[in-house]
This record gives sequence, structure tokens and C-alpha cells, in this order.
Amino acid sequence: MSQNRVVRVGLLGFGTIGSSVYRLVTNEHDQILEGTGVDLQVKKVLEIDESKKPADAPEDLFTTDFGEIVEDPEIEIVVELIGGTGAAFTFLDTALRKGKNVVTANKQLLATKGEALFTLARDLGRHLRFEASVGGAIPIIKVMRESMIAAELHTVYGIVNGTTNYILTRMYNCEGDYADVLTQAQKLGYAEADPTADVGGGDAAAKMAILGSIAFHSRVTLSDVTMEGIQSITLDDVRYAKSLGFVVKLIGAARLIEGSVSVRVFPALLPVDHPLSSISGAHNAVFLQGDAIGEIMLMGPGAGGMPTATAVVSDIVSIANTKDVGFLQSCSCYRKLPFYPADEMESAFFIKMNVEDVSGVLAQIAAVFGAHKVSIESMIQKGRGAEAELVLITHPTKERDFFAAIGEANRLSCCKSKPMTLRVL
Amino acid sequence: MSQNRVVRVGLLGFGTIGSSVYRLVTNEHDQILEGTGVDLQVKKVLEIDESKKPADAPEDLFTTDFGEIVEDPEIEIVVELIGGTGAAFTFLDTALRKGKNVVTANKQLLATKGEALFTLARDLGRHLRFEASVGGAIPIIKVMRESMIAAELHTVYGIVNGTTNYILTRMYNCEGDYADVLTQAQKLGYAEADPTADVGGGDAAAKMAILGSIAFHSRVTLSDVTMEGIQSITLDDVRYAKSLGFVVKLIGAARLIEGSVSVRVFPALLPVDHPLSSISGAHNAVFLQGDAIGEIMLMGPGAGGMPTATAVVSDIVSIANTKDVGFLQSCSCYRKLPFYPADEMESAFFIKMNVEDVSGVLAQIAAVFGAHKVSIESMIQKGRGAEAELVLITHPTKERDFFAAIGEANRLSCCKSKPMTLRVL
Repeated sequence: MSQNRVVRVGLLGFGTIGSSVYRLVTNEHDQILEGTGVDLQVKKVLEIDESKKPADAPEDLFTTDFGEIVEDPEIEIVVELIGGTGAAFTFLDTALRKGKNVVTANKQLLATKGEALFTLARDLGRHLRFEASVGGAIPIIKVMRESMIAAELHTVYGIVNGTTNYILTRMYNCEGDYADVLTQAQKLGYAEADPTADVGGGDAAAKMAILGSIAFHSRVTLSDVTMEGIQSITLDDVRYAKSLGFVVKLIGAARLIEGSVSVRVFPALLPVDHPLSSISGAHNAVFLQGDAIGEIMLMGPGAGGMPTATAVVSDIVSIANTKDVGFLQSCSCYRKLPFYPADEMESAFFIKMNVEDVSGVLAQIAAVFGAHKVSIESMIQKGRGAEAELVLITHPTKERDFFAAIGEANRLSCCKSKPMTLRVL
Repeated sequence: MSQNRVVRVGLLGFGTIGSSVYRLVTNEHDQILEGTGVDLQVKKVLEIDESKKPADAPEDLFTTDFGEIVEDPEIEIVVELIGGTGAAFTFLDTALRKGKNVVTANKQLLATKGEALFTLARDLGRHLRFEASVGGAIPIIKVMRESMIAAELHTVYGIVNGTTNYILTRMYNCEGDYADVLTQAQKLGYAEADPTADVGGGDAAAKMAILGSIAFHSRVTLSDVTMEGIQSITLDDVRYAKSLGFVVKLIGAARLIEGSVSVRVFPALLPVDHPLSSISGAHNAVFLQGDAIGEIMLMGPGAGGMPTATAVVSDIVSIANTKDVGFLQSCSCYRKLPFYPADEMESAFFIKMNVEDVSGVLAQIAAVFGAHKVSIESMIQKGRGAEAELVLITHPTKERDFFAAIGEANRLSCCKSKPMTLRVL
């Protein structure tokens, strides 16, 4: 073992993750020292909210002045855990310029302003690590960047938002409708007071932008991601899907198609025996597919203070052990690929339509789909009279064609309300 | 990006994995160069079998003289892919002493003579990397050593042998009995001509010795692992388990119990909805459980030339990018823990007994189990007369007590043949 070395860290933010990082560094101090020779110490914590300071914290641990961290020559690593894209950006930018290595769990920041930070880190020869930004305790960033270096990944997909997965799992178990379950999730701390970023797909989209950028070595920003949330999924939809052997999940999917990148977030139906169907509650799971590996899956807690803190601490230890920055110093985006047009993507769709129960309806609808080259895999007619419902599942179809067909079907007089559509994975 | 650097590699062995590593390094050369600045070149291949040389290989690529590799100052990294514990040890030992960094996929070697090699690598300040030794393309070693550095792992368990999983999967699908399916597996290249190491549990035991050593920072060698293979599992057993909602899998399990280490390999019954039950064919899957992370699972192809080659190449690239060896240079075993006595372990058991169909039999058997403190969770009596069968599942029980009870039950006159027992996960 090389000689022991003291490495001092400054934490920005002492919320759920920040306090867990502090606790983990303290609890695991001796093991990390024995295992790596790094004597890890949290020297300062920036926290403006007085109420977050624990009663037993050392007197001089906390500060409200960022300068006390960034100007301290003893602090080698600055860990940003305050979130948002304003102050967090300024803090990381300043820290890098002052010669610090940095660690962040901030997916929104990286997915919107990542390029500027990665470029700065590379130019200054500093580390910018972000394992905790995607998948909580799941080491997806390290695995993709280091272990999959020769795997030629072409697809990354999975469940990357724990809040929506928690909500959809409870709806699947018929424990309440969307609004009820969301309220419960907020009470339990699984959802924010303003849940928009989670339920609207923005959180998943930021994570998929990061994973897509790494997988295909080409920058994907948040605005490049096509996204759809789960706000319009009803308990009826989930029940109905369940009765047909499907589970509803919010899926993130990044694909390389003929040299172009597609990154999307959307709710989808999965057959109940699909491995992602059994990922329940706040768990995350990501599949990596590549020419040389076939398929790999990683699964684990996608959020939570301590799990996420293990990812932050692994980044800190990794930096502390790497005197030479190497290829991990900089962003892995060494090329610039075009984006694949969203309406050219092919998906299979589930369609539920309320139709008039009169003869000739099936023929009319089939004609519309046929005219748009949408081929039907299965069709079920349920109910009678005013309750008559038509359920169709299509073969994979160009999305442009599909939506044109649905628009036209919706204008048919036999179609009594806007059809409900969901992609099928 | 730092300056490009040529890194020359010597391969020992050009079998399935060796030839795949060569192909992958060639195919991925430009991507690795762009991504990491490493200009990776296989300079020499040691292969004694003339028939393994591809027709289109460069004239001077192959050698039958190890000296041409180990004495070549241009070769920085020696990759051992010949297997076995004889020549492989000598080659790696010599390569380290000659100043080379080394990579190996050789689980048997590491699980039996790993300590000597790790000590030598540490003393000489060289890398000894072994990602491909466990789990094929699954980056389990990197995840455990680097990402789980603060996770306080206490349990590592899963399916780590693809051959037995392939056999058990086919038996579960009723595609043949053990002997048939093994013969087919041999024909398809999923099993060796001499299948003992796989079906006897030795391959899984070597892998679990490696995973246990990393998880608990204390050396586990092959001889420390308690193991049982699948040779005595019959198609009837598998069918019978299936009818009760169970799947038979060969499980590797490493646990830290009150500061002592237990590493075991055994066939077990898993409820059909257990995540490992759906791992089919030659796939591997490993669960990591720790105080700070809860539970993480990694799943993927556990063998195969190209998947395993991705792990070897990731090790090579990692070494090529690390001028400073850091904590990953040496074995992570910095302490010496005792082993937990195998017969003190607690397991739940499944028992199938052929019994006489006379009154009082149940009472007799229940009395025997009761006397040994083995508590029964469920009991089913099936059939009548000569076909009468008793199926019991116990609560978790100290194994010593369980086997004492089974021995005594077996001596009862009402017990017509040796009871079949399997652990239940």
C-alpha cells in the first residue's frame, strides 16, 4: 500500500445527500484509509439553512461563505449537492478555476450546462465526477465509461426515475389513483412538493441525456430529449393494461440508429414477464446493449441519502487515488453525431378507443390504419353499446405514420372520444 | 485529452477469449484511441497450437517462446488467457518480476495462488487486474472494488456459473434429464469435455472465493469454500420443485456473519418470482448487499469470447491510463477474518421423503425434527400406499441440527429411502 495521504473535502449543501455523505465519510473513514491509503476528511460544509446543522457537529464545520471553502488551499475536492442550475454552476465553475477537483450529483446542471463544465475541467486538468447524478447507488457512470470502453453500446434503456416508478407501482397494485398515490408519495418524501420534474419526465430526461452522451460519445443536452410524463396515466389505464398482461412504466431510452442519436422518455407498456416489469417502488434499472457484450443490466436503489452517498464517496476516493487525471478527466464526447428525427422512430403502440357499436366500424378503422401503413398485431373488441371499446396493438410503426393514422381515426364519426395511446416496449 | 500514447500488449493464449481480445483490440482501436488517448496494439501472441493461428494474422504476431514477450521492453502489459495453475502462474510471476503489468481471466489461479501474485504485484508496484475472472462481461470486480468502497458489503450472492445454469434451465423447461442436457451442452460448447469443474461447483467456488475476498477484505481461497454441485439433481427433482413453485439454481453465496466469513456454493430452490429465478441459460447475476446501499444487482453474459474480451480490454485500458498505480495495485485483503463454521450456518431446507402410508408416520417424523429444534414451515403429504411421499419445508435452521435430524429420520423404519434435501433461498 502506498503511503497514507490526508484528503480534505468541502461539501456544498447539507440536505439529504450532503448529510449522508458526511455520515458515510465519518463512518467509513477507517475502512477507506485501510483499503486505499486515503485519510478522508470533510473540512467544511456550506449550508445556509441553520436548521440543517446537527447539534453534535463540530463548531467550525459549517459556513455560509463559499469563499471559506474555495479559497482554502487544504481543500482538494469540492462536492456540490445543492442542486439547481444557478448557484451550483457558479460554485463548480469557480471551484475548478481555483484548482479544485469537483464531484456533483446534479443531473439538471450536467444535462443543461455540462459542456461548459467538462471543457473547463479538461482545460484545467481537473476531475469532474458525477456518479451520483444517475441511478443513485447504481454505478452506471463508471460501468459505462470504464468497463464498457470496448463494448460499442448501441442502446441504453431502463427505469431511471424512482418517484414515477413508485407511483406507477402503487397504481399497478391498485392502491389509489394517480392523485392519491402522488399525495402519499409526497408525504413519504418520495416526491417533491412540486412534482413536475419527476412526473413530467424532466428528471428522467436529464439522466438519459447524461447516459446518452456517455454511451455514444456525443453530447446530448436536456433539450435534445423527447419526453412525455405520466400525468395523464389513469388508474383505469393501468388496470386495463394489467388485465391484458402489461405493466405501465416510465422508460428512458437512448439509441444509436444508423449513426444518429435518439434519446426519449415516455410511459410504455411492458409485458409482465419483461425484466423491467418487476422493478418496483423507487428502484432503478438500466440495460446496456452493445455489439460485444450482448446485454447487461444494473439494478438498485435509484435514490435515497445513503445509497446516493456511496456513489459520491466512490467518486471522492477515486479522485483522491488518481494523481494522473487520465482519460476520465474529461467528457467522453469526442464526436458530434446528428439526432435521429423523433417522428421517424419506430414503436409498437397500444390503442384504446371508445367506438360506436354499429356494423362497419371495424372496417372503417382498419382502413384508416391500413392507409397509413400501420399494421395491427392484435385487436380486441370489448363491451357493447355505449360501452363498446376497441383495443389494438400495432406492429412497430414509424411514429409519424402512427400519429397521422390516429389523428384521422379520431375524426371518424364512429370514434366517440380521443383514443388513448401508449408505446409498447 | 492528454497526448496519445502507444501501449503494446502481449497475449498468452489464442483460444476463445484470446482470439476475441485480439479481434476487439483491432476493431475498437480507433474508438479507444479517441476516447482515452491510448494507441493499443497487440504486439505478440504466445500460442503453441499452430491450428489456432488465423490465416490472415500478421507473420510475426505469433510466437511459441514466452521469452519473446517477457523480454521485449516495448511490451508493457502481459495478458494471461491460457488457464490452469501451472504455466499460467510461472508466466504471470515472471512477467511481474520483469516489470510488466498483468491482466488475467484465470479464476482457478487467483483462487488458489492469488495471494503470492498479489503480494508480488504490490511489492513491485505493478498492476494485477482480473475483471474477466468472474462474471464474463459483468464488471463485478470494478464495481465491488471501486464503486462499493463505502458500501460495507455483508452479502454477495448469485449465479456465477453459466454451464450449470444452462443445464438447470433446460431441465426446468423439461428438455431432457441431467445426462442428456449435459451432452447437448458439451456439443454446443457450453460445457467442457470434462465438465467436473462446472457441474461439481469448483468453477463457481473459485469465483466466489474471489468475490468473497474483495467483499470482506480478507483472503478466501478455493479450499475455504464449502461446495456442492448439481450432479445429483434429477429431472424429477426439478419437475417436482417446479410443481411447487420453485426453480433449482446453483447459488454462490458469500456472507459476513458476526465478523466471520462464510463462502458456499450449493444448489438451491428459489421461489419462481425471485429475481434470480428468471436468470436463464448461460447468464450470470450477482446481488451485492450492504448497509449503505441496500441491494444492487448486476446481470449479463457470464461467459463467451467477446463478452469476456470486453472485460479484459477494460482492464488493459485502465492500466494504460493509470501512471500512478494507487490502491488498485494491490489486493484489497487488508485484514484476516476467521471463517464461520459451515455447520453453524442457518438455512431453510426442502425435504422429500418416501414414507410408509401407515398411521403414526407423521407423528414419528415430526417428533424427530422437533427433538433437533428443526421447525417445519409447511408439510404436504402426496400419494398413497407405496407412492406415499412427504414434502417438508423447514424454517431457517442451524445446518448441524438439520443434518442430525435428517440422519435420524432416515433411520426410522417408516422412511423407505434416503430423503432428498435441498436448501431453499
